Amino acid sequence: MDKFEFISPLDYRYWDKETAKLLSEEARIGFQAKVEAVLAMALAKQGICSRQIAEEIAKASEKVRAEEVYEEEKITKHDVRALANCIRKKVSDRAKPFVHFGATSYDIVDTANAVRYKEACEKTVIPELVRLEKTLIEIALREKSTLQIGRTHGQHAEPITFGFAIAGYVNRLGNRIKAIEKTKDLLEGKFSGAVGAFNGSSLFVQDPPGFEKSIMEQLGLKQCKHSTQVVAPETLLDLLNALVGAFNVLANFADDMRNLQRSEIAEVAEAFGAKQVGSSTMPHKRNPINFENVKSLWKEFMPRAITFNMDAISEHQRDLTNSASQRFVPELFAGVVASAKRLNKVCSNLVVDKESMKRNFDSCKEGIVAEPLYLLLAAKGYPDAHEYVRKKTLEAEKSGNKLMDLVLADEEITPFIEKLGKQQKEILQNPEKYTGIAEKKTLEVCKYWKAQFRI
Amino acid sequence: MDKFEFISPLDYRYWDKETAKLLSEEARIGFQAKVEAVLAMALAKQGICSRQIAEEIAKASEKVRAEEVYEEEKITKHDVRALANCIRKKVSDRAKPFVHFGATSYDIVDTANAVRYKEACEKTVIPELVRLEKTLIEIALREKSTLQIGRTHGQHAEPITFGFAIAGYVNRLGNRIKAIEKTKDLLEGKFSGAVGAFNGSSLFVQDPPGFEKSIMEQLGLKQCKHSTQVVAPETLLDLLNALVGAFNVLANFADDMRNLQRSEIAEVAEAFGAKQVGSSTMPHKRNPINFENVKSLWKEFMPRAITFNMDAISEHQRDLTNSASQRFVPELFAGVVASAKRLNKVCSNLVVDKESMKRNFDSCKEGIVAEPLYLLLAAKGYPDAHEYVRKKTLEAEKSGNKLMDLVLADEEITPFIEKLGKQQKEILQNPEKYTGIAEKKTLEVCKYWKAQFRI
Amino acid sequence: MDKFEFISPLDYRYWDKETAKLLSEEARIGFQAKVEAVLAMALAKQGICSRQIAEEIAKASEKVRAEEVYEEEKITKHDVRALANCIRKKVSDRAKPFVHFGATSYDIVDTANAVRYKEACEKTVIPELVRLEKTLIEIALREKSTLQIGRTHGQHAEPITFGFAIAGYVNRLGNRIKAIEKTKDLLEGKFSGAVGAFNGSSLFVQDPPGFEKSIMEQLGLKQCKHSTQVVAPETLLDLLNALVGAFNVLANFADDMRNLQRSEIAEVAEAFGAKQVGSSTMPHKRNPINFENVKSLWKEFMPRAITFNMDAISEHQRDLTNSASQRFVPELFAGVVASAKRLNKVCSNLVVDKESMKRNFDSCKEGIVAEPLYLLLAAKGYPDAHEYVRKKTLEAEKSGNKLMDLVLADEEITPFIEKLGKQQKEILQNPEKYTGIAEKKTLEVCKYWKAQFRI
Amino acid sequence: MDKFEFISPLDYRYWDKETAKLLSEEARIGFQAKVEAVLAMALAKQGICSRQIAEEIAKASEKVRAEEVYEEEKITKHDVRALANCIRKKVSDRAKPFVHFGATSYDIVDTANAVRYKEACEKTVIPELVRLEKTLIEIALREKSTLQIGRTHGQHAEPITFGFAIAGYVNRLGNRIKAIEKTKDLLEGKFSGAVGAFNGSSLFVQDPPGFEKSIMEQLGLKQCKHSTQVVAPETLLDLLNALVGAFNVLANFADDMRNLQRSEIAEVAEAFGAKQVGSSTMPHKRNPINFENVKSLWKEFMPRAITFNMDAISEHQRDLTNSASQRFVPELFAGVVASAKRLNKVCSNLVVDKESMKRNFDSCKEGIVAEPLYLLLAAKGYPDAHEYVRKKTLEAEKSGNKLMDLVLADEEITPFIEKLGKQQKEILQNPEKYTGIAEKKTLEVCKYWKAQFRI
Repeated sequence: MDKFEFISPLDYRYWDKETAKLLSEEARIGFQAKVEAVLAMALAKQGICSRQIAEEIAKASEKVRAEEVYEEEKITKHDVRALANCIRKKVSDRAKPFVHFGATSYDIVDTANAVRYKEACEKTVIPELVRLEKTLIEIALREKSTLQIGRTHGQHAEPITFGFAIAGYVNRLGNRIKAIEKTKDLLEGKFSGAVGAFNGSSLFVQDPPGFEKSIMEQLGLKQCKHSTQVVAPETLLDLLNALVGAFNVLANFADDMRNLQRSEIAEVAEAFGAKQVGSSTMPHKRNPINFENVKSLWKEFMPRAITFNMDAISEHQRDLTNSASQRFVPELFAGVVASAKRLNKVCSNLVVDKESMKRNFDSCKEGIVAEPLYLLLAAKGYPDAHEYVRKKTLEAEKSGNKLMDLVLADEEITPFIEKLGKQQKEILQNPEKYTGIAEKKTLEVCKYWKAQFRI
Repeated sequence: MDKFEFISPLDYRYWDKETAKLLSEEARIGFQAKVEAVLAMALAKQGICSRQIAEEIAKASEKVRAEEVYEEEKITKHDVRALANCIRKKVSDRAKPFVHFGATSYDIVDTANAVRYKEACEKTVIPELVRLEKTLIEIALREKSTLQIGRTHGQHAEPITFGFAIAGYVNRLGNRIKAIEKTKDLLEGKFSGAVGAFNGSSLFVQDPPGFEKSIMEQLGLKQCKHSTQVVAPETLLDLLNALVGAFNVLANFADDMRNLQRSEIAEVAEAFGAKQVGSSTMPHKRNPINFENVKSLWKEFMPRAITFNMDAISEHQRDLTNSASQRFVPELFAGVVASAKRLNKVCSNLVVDKESMKRNFDSCKEGIVAEPLYLLLAAKGYPDAHEYVRKKTLEAEKSGNKLMDLVLADEEITPFIEKLGKQQKEILQNPEKYTGIAEKKTLEVCKYWKAQFRI
Repeated sequence: MDKFEFISPLDYRYWDKETAKLLSEEARIGFQAKVEAVLAMALAKQGICSRQIAEEIAKASEKVRAEEVYEEEKITKHDVRALANCIRKKVSDRAKPFVHFGATSYDIVDTANAVRYKEACEKTVIPELVRLEKTLIEIALREKSTLQIGRTHGQHAEPITFGFAIAGYVNRLGNRIKAIEKTKDLLEGKFSGAVGAFNGSSLFVQDPPGFEKSIMEQLGLKQCKHSTQVVAPETLLDLLNALVGAFNVLANFADDMRNLQRSEIAEVAEAFGAKQVGSSTMPHKRNPINFENVKSLWKEFMPRAITFNMDAISEHQRDLTNSASQRFVPELFAGVVASAKRLNKVCSNLVVDKESMKRNFDSCKEGIVAEPLYLLLAAKGYPDAHEYVRKKTLEAEKSGNKLMDLVLADEEITPFIEKLGKQQKEILQNPEKYTGIAEKKTLEVCKYWKAQFRI
Repeated sequence: MDKFEFISPLDYRYWDKETAKLLSEEARIGFQAKVEAVLAMALAKQGICSRQIAEEIAKASEKVRAEEVYEEEKITKHDVRALANCIRKKVSDRAKPFVHFGATSYDIVDTANAVRYKEACEKTVIPELVRLEKTLIEIALREKSTLQIGRTHGQHAEPITFGFAIAGYVNRLGNRIKAIEKTKDLLEGKFSGAVGAFNGSSLFVQDPPGFEKSIMEQLGLKQCKHSTQVVAPETLLDLLNALVGAFNVLANFADDMRNLQRSEIAEVAEAFGAKQVGSSTMPHKRNPINFENVKSLWKEFMPRAITFNMDAISEHQRDLTNSASQRFVPELFAGVVASAKRLNKVCSNLVVDKESMKRNFDSCKEGIVAEPLYLLLAAKGYPDAHEYVRKKTLEAEKSGNKLMDLVLADEEITPFIEKLGKQQKEILQNPEKYTGIAEKKTLEVCKYWKAQFRI
């Protein structure tokens, strides 16, 4: 079948091989088979079956393919039973009873999902985000002293450096990667049976939670302190929230970049291929299509937080109304990875136009002085410095004079100005120096996160 | 490639051929090519190109496949330009300039989506929902006089018939199908160029909106009263809300059925295959897996209403932050269709257990009398009938007596009871007759919707 | 009690008297009492009680205040029973039995809400939105020929007029007001009793649905075709979606305006009070705080669409898990009204800076020619006009030459240029004329909506 | 003004004094004033103003009331400047310049919110949740060996104890309380000025981040590693997600309880007041109104996760489109507290009907044997035990025989049965013993969480 016969953009358009290895249906079933294999080995350790039988089952599990499980499901109408049957077909008669032995479906499903999501974090989500983090750190360091006007409410505010702005994203993204790391390590699996009370395993092992623990350790998962038929939803929800949180950071960064790419601002730009078409009728256009794409994917995936929260509610020892919806969970991982990869690619060639930054800064240079002026006047004891500067600013605007000229001409103010130190006076004359500790902060933030991720 | 290498359950699990014909990426590009064809024909009518050229383009458009467009996009980095190039490659040199002539990408994209969504409604969404409506009507009519206890707050309330309960869904679903019909007919397309002001088409036609209108008429769409680069989002949003609204009804129905299938209630059941496995460790179980599935898909798709509303905001003459997210829109259609089909299948064999319904009714028969008793006492002028009955009910509960026995033994009440008509007295003795106009209403509702959909 | 002891910003900050009259708890109970009054009158018409009794009840209903109902509820733990008790206390003993006679709580609650929401639409939501529509029409007409560069992807695209841009909002908002009008007129009430089968009313009237209809007509509501204990949720959901849809338009407009107010763009501005403080440390700033406020309220209220959709699911003849959540529904109305009022106020004094618009247009004037050039070349039969212009644009950019100079110097192109008409050539020289039918469209759209709303 | 003139149910209906002290507008402004006071003291420590002046400001700050700030805001149109003015009015002229000195509005707003939310967690949210946790632990321990049939898919599955079911909620709620504790301790404040680069404070202190740190330590907050005008949104988002997560647990618990209160199940019930009215027309009803209320509030508040995530995106050094929406944030806290209090109240008197539990268990006793039977047969080496038991179960159902009777009569099976141990055989005869380690697990979970919260 042709991928264009499919419906989801994740499959026909944003699919990539590496990610699919962990997030596809084939992968899902592969991880389930792995749990079945680990179960068999654990049974052998308990002396319930022989080591030989366990190895037979483990080997058979490795060979199971999604396609045959789906074929079998047509008969059983039950996906996990189908999986067990497929493994069973591949083993000797004496091994058959020990396939899926003592397991309820969700011992396998929830546990396998936890392993899978953990691996997806470790092998694709986190590496991709760290790669992006590295790229952002490089930009931040490179542009640590590139003067840029800071903007609040879309209005020119006070100066920063472009590196400092990027460092904010370095910090937020770093923080979210840490959140993903922390939450993926807390993912839990279970082997507590149909209603969580270890009813079944109590029949054949002495210490059922101990047995469960040995399986989880083998798989690198935490053990539930209490489960029903399913693992308590909170640990997965924490990870999903961490992923959505990372997506927020990507989307916010994308928003900033596409705004900085506005024709009138023009401080950054996506690099543009030689044969690339800007627009089907306007060949001159350079659209921030990659940044727009990331924001758009965020619009698609962020609202799934609602689904995740709804899925945290399951009646009694569980209902199945989170079954189909949970099949869509890997899509969030895929969305995050696709966006991180895209941003990393576009950021690796991000065009930073320092001249535009300088031009934009200069256009409001005069007004910028207002803040340090007001602060310095106040520090030197001028009673209502804010109101004074506010009025002078309006006067400057109306009259077309420079604010500092008006102020220096005001005799009432002279004594306060005279009290100022050299550096302080300099800032009033050269507002581009009024960047506070932007550069220092940039270095500090980048250093911290480089160390954290050893990049 | 194997479908199990894909990530979306809509592709590897819930995909069906018929729906995919309208909702896949192949379909999307097919509809875009169709719009290009219609455009060429419209150009010919205006004398901009010859009829021969137009037909050449129209024929070429039919032959375009998604795969080649994607190949071409790798070069252009622009999907609609890629489509135009693919058509252009298939026509003679003199036809080339008239391919995609005067169109901005979204003249094609938005218009093609409107055609596609309209057709998806007409060819799959509405027919599937109407089919389900028909099945529900059959159940409602068949069970129109099947006594069932009505439940509010999960508590036994007053009697209805099972058919009456189903008729509620007949009515709500009918209403939503009508909403889908209405909104899909209002879908708009556009041919107003890059910023909506017909800048381009004003160069070569006398009456640009008239030209736009002729294209829309050909495609069965409404014309925008005003557009930017894109069609105003509200008409599509109305359709998507109607679809979500229909999904709500399906989910609510599924919830009711799975609750009625609870072990203790057992009034309905999904039919069960001979080889079907109820549970991997509990072979005796009969789970309402299809009803659960529908509720679960609702959890996945309903929250997309957030995406749809976010996509209704686009900066200035448009930004592209709704582009990727809109690629996911067909998934809602697929979700509704999959759920409708599933419900129709399970409802066609729905097991209705009248004995259970009778048993459940009988268990609370005594209490039911309270309402008609209170109403009749009040109607005959007893001052605080509600409070009187409330107390007597508690007394009956405590003493283990029947409510009516206590009441009839109360001399204060006798004169009021005596004023009652024969039918009224009968209801107090046989509360199963206290079903109001449940049966009549069922007939009426079913008749109405049968006529509406000619089913 | 002091309003600042309250938690909701709708109460301590965004509250206004006029709106509260319809949306407060006092109002809610007032509308319920009104339904009780209408019920009494309907009972009299049926001869169940005397007209005198009915009038007694109606008068008593008018006098009920929220406070006493809440006091009574402390005893009954049931709000509607508390209301009935409060009315009952105010009437003679012989009238007492006919208060709330035959009604289940939600006959009153749902019906009263429908009346209330309808009135809220008619008396505050629609008038405020129409007022804003009028203001927008005034701006659109005033600025119908004010040249502005159209923007897509935040990039300069092709020229429009500012009036044309505003006309887009006129059209979308007009469309949503119509949707609100339509949906509020379809709101339904019910008098079908505890489980919707008219069990109770069948005891005392001949034609229960006819009786229900007479009550609904009196209240200006539609009658349900089928109800359970509650009205089917879809009609209210339609209205709420229409309100959210209107909010989307307000938010989109607000976004555009605050972007156009960016320091670098500066095409519009909120008027600014003489004593207003731009920022606590930056007295020079002019922030688009009102536009930001509207966008922010949208973020708060739009996601409630999720609540509304979840509330469309209620088990069996109803559960009560939509009761508390439905108490919050009026907040959406309040949010829309507050935003409409705010926008109307700020738009009434909107500063439009035509010089900035001209300056921004001029900065990209050269590039604009690309689109008409490519179209005209194509129309005259140049084989791949788009590709030709794309390359020439890049060449112009690199060399610093004007695009048209390069093109006119290209001998290959001369024959095609010569075929152009006078107007066509003029546009290539004066791209500010390339506004298509922006002005005409503006007039048309405004005329249409003025007529629709008679404004 | 009367609370019934207000719109939000949180104010007229669910308001409580204790919570409002932390979450009202008065509280918000109080916390802001507190930050202003701490700032003044920090300035004194730096020698920028005298200790006397600082104390003067601190005292004045304590006296500020919301009402006067709102009056002042009518003039300044800026809320934080209004606050500063109100403090300034209360101090001597020489203190005036040092009020709000060097602060940008959001140094105050974000920091004050962090303090407030932290305190709200510590003083009301966590204590109320811990109180509920305690009540749940009491129920779990009391009912640790109360036999209950475990339910999956609403179907009887395998036996548990009621205490074990409650222990699941003890564990999940405990886990969420821990999450709230952890995240509230990570809340950050800032004193980095208008664009986060410490532009202002660099003018007057040597070590601006050190100065910021001293303020945060005084307030018990973390210091941002990087901020813009505002604190990076992630730490607050983590707390809000933790609150939503706790709400999920409350809602899930409420769902379970109201389902167990269904007429047919009747295993638990809300206690019912003597004068309480069950229904306005059905005096016999006992509705789970409190559990329904909690689920309903969850429907209202959970979707706000969307708002919180949208508010995590702010353009450049911040836009203000999260300002109004963030004013609604305290509502989530209020919703959680109201729900926790309500559940605690209803659970303190929860009616647990052991007889109903026994009756429900007995009704499916026969089927329960299937699982242990299949497991034991498999353990003893019977080839396809699951399939065997599945068929026998169907046979039992059809023939009306007991499953175990059929099995024991099957000679093929006898050798396997004989291999079983005594306890194993006993479970096959007395399925009520098949509760695994339900009781032990209950004890363990309760012990753990009692220790965690010292309750």
